Amino acid sequence: VTRSSSHGQVIDLNSDVGEGFGIWKVGDDDALLGIITSANVACGYHAGDASTMRHVCEVAAVRGLSVGAQVGYRDLPGFGRRYIDMAADELANDVLYQIAALDGIAKAEGTRVAYVKPHGALYNTIAHDECQAAAVIAAVKAFREGLPIYGLPGSVSLRLAGEAGLTPVPEAFADRAYTARAGLVPRQHAYAVLHDAELIAARVVQMAIEGTVVAEDGSTIAVAPRSVCVHGDTPGAAAIAGSVRAALEAAGVEVSAVTA
Amino acid sequence: VTRSSSHGQVIDLNSDVGEGFGIWKVGDDDALLGIITSANVACGYHAGDASTMRHVCEVAAVRGLSVGAQVGYRDLPGFGRRYIDMAADELANDVLYQIAALDGIAKAEGTRVAYVKPHGALYNTIAHDECQAAAVIAAVKAFREGLPIYGLPGSVSLRLAGEAGLTPVPEAFADRAYTARAGLVPRQHAYAVLHDAELIAARVVQMAIEGTVVAEDGSTIAVAPRSVCVHGDTPGAAAIAGSVRAALEAAGVEVSAVTA
Amino acid sequence: VTRSSSHGQVIDLNSDVGEGFGIWKVGDDDALLGIITSANVACGYHAGDASTMRHVCEVAAVRGLSVGAQVGYRDLPGFGRRYIDMAADELANDVLYQIAALDGIAKAEGTRVAYVKPHGALYNTIAHDECQAAAVIAAVKAFREGLPIYGLPGSVSLRLAGEAGLTPVPEAFADRAYTARAGLVPRQHAYAVLHDAELIAARVVQMAIEGTVVAEDGSTIAVAPRSVCVHGDTPGAAAIAGSVRAALEAAGVEVSAVTA
Amino acid sequence: VTRSSSHGQVIDLNSDVGEGFGIWKVGDDDALLGIITSANVACGYHAGDASTMRHVCEVAAVRGLSVGAQVGYRDLPGFGRRYIDMAADELANDVLYQIAALDGIAKAEGTRVAYVKPHGALYNTIAHDECQAAAVIAAVKAFREGLPIYGLPGSVSLRLAGEAGLTPVPEAFADRAYTARAGLVPRQHAYAVLHDAELIAARVVQMAIEGTVVAEDGSTIAVAPRSVCVHGDTPGAAAIAGSVRAALEAAGVEVSAVTA
Repeated sequence: VTRSSSHGQVIDLNSDVGEGFGIWKVGDDDALLGIITSANVACGYHAGDASTMRHVCEVAAVRGLSVGAQVGYRDLPGFGRRYIDMAADELANDVLYQIAALDGIAKAEGTRVAYVKPHGALYNTIAHDECQAAAVIAAVKAFREGLPIYGLPGSVSLRLAGEAGLTPVPEAFADRAYTARAGLVPRQHAYAVLHDAELIAARVVQMAIEGTVVAEDGSTIAVAPRSVCVHGDTPGAAAIAGSVRAALEAAGVEVSAVTA
Repeated sequence: VTRSSSHGQVIDLNSDVGEGFGIWKVGDDDALLGIITSANVACGYHAGDASTMRHVCEVAAVRGLSVGAQVGYRDLPGFGRRYIDMAADELANDVLYQIAALDGIAKAEGTRVAYVKPHGALYNTIAHDECQAAAVIAAVKAFREGLPIYGLPGSVSLRLAGEAGLTPVPEAFADRAYTARAGLVPRQHAYAVLHDAELIAARVVQMAIEGTVVAEDGSTIAVAPRSVCVHGDTPGAAAIAGSVRAALEAAGVEVSAVTA
Repeated sequence: VTRSSSHGQVIDLNSDVGEGFGIWKVGDDDALLGIITSANVACGYHAGDASTMRHVCEVAAVRGLSVGAQVGYRDLPGFGRRYIDMAADELANDVLYQIAALDGIAKAEGTRVAYVKPHGALYNTIAHDECQAAAVIAAVKAFREGLPIYGLPGSVSLRLAGEAGLTPVPEAFADRAYTARAGLVPRQHAYAVLHDAELIAARVVQMAIEGTVVAEDGSTIAVAPRSVCVHGDTPGAAAIAGSVRAALEAAGVEVSAVTA
Repeated sequence: VTRSSSHGQVIDLNSDVGEGFGIWKVGDDDALLGIITSANVACGYHAGDASTMRHVCEVAAVRGLSVGAQVGYRDLPGFGRRYIDMAADELANDVLYQIAALDGIAKAEGTRVAYVKPHGALYNTIAHDECQAAAVIAAVKAFREGLPIYGLPGSVSLRLAGEAGLTPVPEAFADRAYTARAGLVPRQHAYAVLHDAELIAARVVQMAIEGTVVAEDGSTIAVAPRSVCVHGDTPGAAAIAGSVRAALEAAGVEVSAVTA
């Protein structure tokens, strides 16, 4: 098989960064920012603070990475991983606040918010909850018409994004096992998260070149993401992300931001 | 004495609004927004939340009021009234974050941040502290060149603002007693805050027409503000603000925003 | 009908107090504390702060009122009114933290936490959710064996409380309409909350004397609370609470704390 | 030189633990808890949360360590390292709240708060500020008469503690350079913090046996702490703490809690 850039495959690598708070840190942001093409920057509601945001934006601007608003529930103690049953208008305003805050900081560093990626429980909720999804979409649209928003393929959030004239960006997860119906295997299963760098890299290459991945039952299913999410918050995460990028480039896949 | 708009006197009336948080409210925002010309909107660090900010911006946009970023220390329990000894770069980033968040919300309502007014302990600190003042000025300048910033006449903050190419806006306080040297009488004095609406209105008219006010020792001192701050957080505050505006207009002073 | 204290009817009047935060206030605590017998004191997670807690405890101690821990989700922006899908052990620890903090403050004023009353979304959730209810009960039991906990008659929380050796205290709501099955009419219905002081007082007297109330469909249903909750956060709330107490005493019902 | 426990020297080793927040962690608590005798547990105002507090208390109870309340300013974004100019009564109530919350959690694990150690900017402030020191002392006394409180030798906080009938515990810092007047060399100096485990251990042994330490100018000064603080928040911190304990025991110094 000839694998060259003449294939035209292009993939974006996104990762969560800036997820510390004050003195507390998560992951190796500086290493990740040397590998990924799109930086999902926490905006202060579930993680992140103004100085961390500014540092990430500065590095992203220097390296030419896309800056995305990683918006979440207002829940620092829970890191945005807990569903909150909140009113749609309040959620919309909270999301708008976060995007705008990051955009102002990004502009001070010569870049700007190029996309939105909801975080944690909010991400999962708007994959299926029409009400909260509509609130998030309304906020993104109020901030800027046409803005890209990342989400699960087939999710309510991406459907509503398309209907609202935003740019839906379906993404896959590099280190997650998939069900035969192209869903993510829930985290409570022991095999839900992959840890082998070589295996993860090979799966991402297959996603990019073939548009498929092997599901938990051994079947080969269609997964054709425009972006692949690599995690940054575990030991060895940056090394895995580096392996993924190297394997993609070796396979002739162009690694570049959706929103460049 | 002929008092007409041919005098050319113009005064801005500013007031703090949007200083509630969640279910908690302060002052009668909707009444004040019918009287003032510039709305200092709390941005979520010492008071205010995204939904409150959006409501105020909506009303301000409809009424054609200027929207200002009322930035403060990150201190909801202390309402931004407690000095915090924080690093300059962190303060600058915190201020930028707040301005940007409000600006994004304002834009969703068809307006934008037209000026900055620091709040509480931050306002008082940067009247004399070079380090924190420089941090605030750097943040405002990073957000937008030339942006107006309100402050005490003679303060470090206004001096540095001028040097940085921002637009310093000296302001007076409608209901505060002045020392013979044009400073504010400290709040611990019983007569530091005036409560008589008629007296307050007459003083503001004198400030606007004559550029003077009677100090605590009976002397007449020079106070020529471009804007006058009326308070909104006490019972009867909106009534006093209304009296001030009516008296100004009766005296032929044009009441309009600095930043319109 | 002879209505005298020889009937032996005894009722407790409880109300939420200390629900401000910093400069923000809710309701007229000092008026309510002159009427009720049990003070549900917010503990800082959804409302309340250490100084407000101390003030309420001081007044409660002087007046001989019972102090209860009004525990809630950690959600100041949402006032604890939003369900949070949190892990049971984290919820238990959060509840224990709140009770303990209040107890220490109460002891500094010569009293102590005499009962627990969950707040808002937590109250409603543990009326039916076994997992969160068990977490709350475990926390209360870990704090003190046998402690009373208030709740809806028939709720999961009261059932588990009884099973755990705590003291379940079924309560009624003075100003809420009831369904024919003794549930509360949801707030979205226009008639869900009663506002007429005389009517409210009469209903509470009927609850205390007859153990019944007239439901929304006109039927008379059994409601035999040990405590009645009067609200404190609306204009006129203290006046209504005063009417309720006066009517109870006029009817010969003894008004005293469950936990005195 | 014969170094045996017949010397009678006894030293306490204290360290800050439980300083994470939600998903964020600082230091290797579990390793430290195997070395130290007194655990300064963050109480949620500048760091720490209920679940982290409970875990630390559980381990401390099992191992027989003393549990101390590491109280601080309410400043999660600043980790309590920023001075806040707050009113004395509010500070006292905030401190009482924190001690009480930890005590309740400790009791659920079969232990209790045995001492108080203020943190960061609060620790430094009350070493010289009479007003804030008095507030902290009042809070500790309100919580429990006679309770030990750690501080700098010669500090205002320890003086007021003694006057109030509390138990002042002067402490030294294992890894900090001292001035000739027995003060700590400010952190901005390159040599302010020592990193060599062997050197640190030898200094602590000298403190315990001889009651002296070599100051920055080479002079030998008197430092006779009842407790020595070992840091836990840097890489290798637990290893250094382990070296200190091993050296003390090898030198015949008894390592045990002040408050056991």
